[in-house]
Amino acid sequence: MSRYDAIQVGDMAEFGKTITEADICAYVAVSGDTNPVHINEVIASGTMFKKRIAHGMLSAGLISAVLGTKLPGAGTIYLSQTLNFKLPVYIGDTITARVTVLEKKGKFRLRLLTECINQDGKIVITGEAEGMLKE
Amino acid sequence: MSRYDAIQVGDMAEFGKTITEADICAYVAVSGDTNPVHINEVIASGTMFKKRIAHGMLSAGLISAVLGTKLPGAGTIYLSQTLNFKLPVYIGDTITARVTVLEKKGKFRLRLLTECINQDGKIVITGEAEGMLKE
Amino acid sequence: MSRYDAIQVGDMAEFGKTITEADICAYVAVSGDTNPVHINEVIASGTMFKKRIAHGMLSAGLISAVLGTKLPGAGTIYLSQTLNFKLPVYIGDTITARVTVLEKKGKFRLRLLTECINQDGKIVITGEAEGMLKE
Amino acid sequence: MSRYDAIQVGDMAEFGKTITEADICAYVAVSGDTNPVHINEVIASGTMFKKRIAHGMLSAGLISAVLGTKLPGAGTIYLSQTLNFKLPVYIGDTITARVTVLEKKGKFRLRLLTECINQDGKIVITGEAEGMLKE
Repeated sequence: MSRYDAIQVGDMAEFGKTITEADICAYVAVSGDTNPVHINEVIASGTMFKKRIAHGMLSAGLISAVLGTKLPGAGTIYLSQTLNFKLPVYIGDTITARVTVLEKKGKFRLRLLTECINQDGKIVITGEAEGMLKE
Repeated sequence: MSRYDAIQVGDMAEFGKTITEADICAYVAVSGDTNPVHINEVIASGTMFKKRIAHGMLSAGLISAVLGTKLPGAGTIYLSQTLNFKLPVYIGDTITARVTVLEKKGKFRLRLLTECINQDGKIVITGEAEGMLKE
Repeated sequence: MSRYDAIQVGDMAEFGKTITEADICAYVAVSGDTNPVHINEVIASGTMFKKRIAHGMLSAGLISAVLGTKLPGAGTIYLSQTLNFKLPVYIGDTITARVTVLEKKGKFRLRLLTECINQDGKIVITGEAEGMLKE
Repeated sequence: MSRYDAIQVGDMAEFGKTITEADICAYVAVSGDTNPVHINEVIASGTMFKKRIAHGMLSAGLISAVLGTKLPGAGTIYLSQTLNFKLPVYIGDTITARVTVLEKKGKFRLRLLTECINQDGKIVITGEAEGMLKE
């Protein structure tokens, strides 16, 4: 049985990490996103967020970690992703990306529910991904 | 006139950078995504990509850089993003994120075309974002 | 059945990655090891290695990745490690850490063969680890 | 007199640094070790350690710094290392690697006591290394 065949609708996997200042520093380098709300405490304190927040796309990267290492896992071709940013993520929050198989469609393709959840159980990002696993 | 009012449908902004091995190294730390296709040249050479590719979500971060620093710019609240991963990005590729205003909708909201384009002019990621700018 | 009980002598797991300049840069920051053979191409070219080599302990970290994420996996308490550095690792080499269960000893303890192997199949590091998994 | 000849049994050297969140972030990239006990505060708080701990092999890297830069110093060929992980290292701990010459054996070889000690004077790692210095 192929790895694709072994995957069932409803299968779920998670990966979580604490979002640190160092992550934000590294993400600025990688993305070039120097938006002050992420890196300038003085400016961030004057916004509705009251302090620096992590880049939304930084937390979204945890979804990629689940897809690429757990479900469907290594070999997955990432086709698409939708992201709805619901709540801010602060430095020190622990974000868990949860991926759930919604549908097996056509050849080797999967439609997946993708959620990022903070340490209080609140959904900070929700959306769907499509991936292909020809193994 | 508010910054929001000054934005016109069709306005465009770009941010580009060369995707380096160091970016991939840092992105592994930030995302936890250790998928071998990104970090293991031996395994990657046996895939359809033939060599290591950058994480799709890494390149998508350049869109966040445009939104957060250029158009709409600092103060933007990132509401949503769709991403269609069209072509692989290799180490050494120079990726330019291009954001174009598609629609001004309701109060302070913008619908934006978001594309990532490589050094050969090919679209590697396409999708749309929504942002809000109350300034 | 506990996770410990499910582990059998002979079980094996691997994790591999290409060792990049960026890894060496990051490892210098983490370890403080500024030995010129790792970071000074002029000095390194005058040694028996002929060019910069990666820190031996950097490659040894891949063993930790297997222990902590695959076999025995998350929850493992790392008790000890022996390392014999057999061959140099150069920038661009792809190193695979392979962990094999040698013995289940006493309560929750495992003795493991730990090897790092380069892209040519040569063992660059060999040794043993002991870990404990109370799950 | 060669540098090797100048080394005496009992010679000692140290290198210490504070282990930061940024070190852990970088070490994840270098090693690929995403074990949640190192990067996920929620999961780590449920373990016997009560909070995130540094990778044991991260602290062991400070030994490499002493060997490669102080005693025996640049030019040393790192032959072997044993590591016994005695106590956890937490973010913010200051770890000092101390290397003491135990024996001069055969040609150019040294047997060394290698200890990592925290800010409270407790040994967190102990073991021995062998190195060769042909200078």
